[in-house]
Amino acid sequence: MKKNSLQITDRVPTPFLLIEEEIVKKNISRIHKYADKHGFAVRPHIKTHKSLEIARMHLDSGAVGLAAAKVGEAEVMAGLGPVDLTVAYPAIGQIRAERIAKLSVKQRVRVAVDTQFAMDELAGEAVKHGTTIGVLVMFDAGLHRCGISDPGQVVKLARYAEATPGLCFDGIQLYLGHLYDDAARNPESFERINLSWEPVHEALCNCGLKPATVSSGSTPSLENTHLVRHITEIRVGTAILNDYFVMKYNHCTMEECAARVVATVVSDVMPGRVIIDAGSKALSAKQLLRHESLEMGYVAEYPDARIIRLHEEHGWVDISRCNPAPKLGERLSIIPVNASLCVNLYDHFHMITSDGGVQKERVDARGCLV
Amino acid sequence: MKKNSLQITDRVPTPFLLIEEEIVKKNISRIHKYADKHGFAVRPHIKTHKSLEIARMHLDSGAVGLAAAKVGEAEVMAGLGPVDLTVAYPAIGQIRAERIAKLSVKQRVRVAVDTQFAMDELAGEAVKHGTTIGVLVMFDAGLHRCGISDPGQVVKLARYAEATPGLCFDGIQLYLGHLYDDAARNPESFERINLSWEPVHEALCNCGLKPATVSSGSTPSLENTHLVRHITEIRVGTAILNDYFVMKYNHCTMEECAARVVATVVSDVMPGRVIIDAGSKALSAKQLLRHESLEMGYVAEYPDARIIRLHEEHGWVDISRCNPAPKLGERLSIIPVNASLCVNLYDHFHMITSDGGVQKERVDARGCLV
Repeated sequence: MKKNSLQITDRVPTPFLLIEEEIVKKNISRIHKYADKHGFAVRPHIKTHKSLEIARMHLDSGAVGLAAAKVGEAEVMAGLGPVDLTVAYPAIGQIRAERIAKLSVKQRVRVAVDTQFAMDELAGEAVKHGTTIGVLVMFDAGLHRCGISDPGQVVKLARYAEATPGLCFDGIQLYLGHLYDDAARNPESFERINLSWEPVHEALCNCGLKPATVSSGSTPSLENTHLVRHITEIRVGTAILNDYFVMKYNHCTMEECAARVVATVVSDVMPGRVIIDAGSKALSAKQLLRHESLEMGYVAEYPDARIIRLHEEHGWVDISRCNPAPKLGERLSIIPVNASLCVNLYDHFHMITSDGGVQKERVDARGCLV
Repeated sequence: MKKNSLQITDRVPTPFLLIEEEIVKKNISRIHKYADKHGFAVRPHIKTHKSLEIARMHLDSGAVGLAAAKVGEAEVMAGLGPVDLTVAYPAIGQIRAERIAKLSVKQRVRVAVDTQFAMDELAGEAVKHGTTIGVLVMFDAGLHRCGISDPGQVVKLARYAEATPGLCFDGIQLYLGHLYDDAARNPESFERINLSWEPVHEALCNCGLKPATVSSGSTPSLENTHLVRHITEIRVGTAILNDYFVMKYNHCTMEECAARVVATVVSDVMPGRVIIDAGSKALSAKQLLRHESLEMGYVAEYPDARIIRLHEEHGWVDISRCNPAPKLGERLSIIPVNASLCVNLYDHFHMITSDGGVQKERVDARGCLV
């Protein structure tokens, strides 16, 4: 962050969330440059910023549509006007299915699923609303969270989607969340994925179900996505803002981190430590391990400071290595460990616009958990 | 939770926050029984529930006023009508000071401080608004987060408060956050506090500044607060709802946990595991260590299940020890590790009322970080 971002916002009470438009734009441009090189469509996953304004910026830059984790987020994004939507999440539950069907009446909606159960609920509501919901079968690329890796099982689900009224088989969704640090840079990691993915792709092609869309996501491995074969689309979430986790593993630089929490030093009575007014309600309770210590954020102005503990409203900052050290009443800007969790704590953020102004923006889809 | 809480709410889409009024009432009554026995005033800390409705319930039960961490929370609580307020947090920053001064025009407001810097800001705004702000000097009882333990320093701050126009010295605030598990049950822990606290109290009395209020807080040690001498008031936050952390250390039972997140099993494709639709955006990223494993919540219906990992919208539940095991589409209710962080993620909660109804309530002070 330029030093003057703190100056520009010095009348905004802390803690608050600050996003730099210039950095967002650069991140979006980097993503598209990579995607264009490999012929990938770009589908921003709005779960990180949850903002109509940033979604609009990204659509204006050539994104093909949006991805959301939850139906509520997708509904908020539909406020932009008809937009091609993917609910990148196994949308179980009749209420969810009904809301997805309603959304799909006005725009193309695809849903990621890994069970027949989910498809039955979606199909029932799609038929009731006279619409068709696209199905992306989730392929498990190695994280073992959701999704299937057995070719026969994937084909079975794809066939079921194709055969069930109200649904159509649109392709495959995968997620590379298990790859970060060196694993996200090592071609062998991707070859291992291809070893199980190629037979699945082949099995689908063999029965006339060649996936029109193969959508991959995850920020650390993003720019190696082309090492997985047959990908057509990248879902990008965290990469639009970046965070301390991404930075720690050298998948971005500090200058590419667009979101920060601005906090104030509120107590300096303990030697070697200050307390800031950003705790786990301002940064989230997410921590990461660095130099064998747990940390909860990165203080941009003091690289030698360490956020060592968060209580709800208190951030404990070890300043014993800092010279000079932050002072009582001083403002600091902190890169959160996980941008998505952090943004979700705020109703608003302050955007430093490209022309150096400040714009208060809503986190439109905050708290959309359903 | 009675089994029928899930039945009563089966039309509410998951994940959602459920609070049982009956349990809240029992917890409040237990707190007051203890306080009455020792002649303590009760000041609920609203940072946990952030709800006007629950604050009102507690005031109706005889609480003397409310505590809040942040000014924004106090402002929301002032919506109940004039109410005696403590901002139990070092309120640094001119904007905060101004808002506190405005609040104190209409009701008694006290602020916890541990620096002269904080008092200067508050005093300036108090004089400007023709009001007086009460000061509680923070005594460090052993957590070493905020507060002073040196008698001379405490007296100096108390004298400064007393001598500064716009302020008055109202007493001492301490926090026993370092005591939990056996330490919160061992009388020696409290004797250690008295060893440093008695000289402070004596020094204050010796110069005519006997603290009218000595306010103590922290849930695990709550019912041993009387072991600290000269306490007049207890601030109670988490104890109104309780959570998995409090339960883990046997400071409450599962039946005394009033807040749960209701989630649905959305994927069951991995052997020995299910995925629920409550991740770190629904439960918070807070974890605790139990049986040498990290856990992120307690599944009330399946004591043998373990929430072993949270992604933003995915909860990983190890069901390998469960017989029977949760099924795809089934609803589970989860006691969060930290109730305060969890509640702060929701705009609303669903209250199961004492008569078995369901009432949708606002988390009025959600996200009030300033």
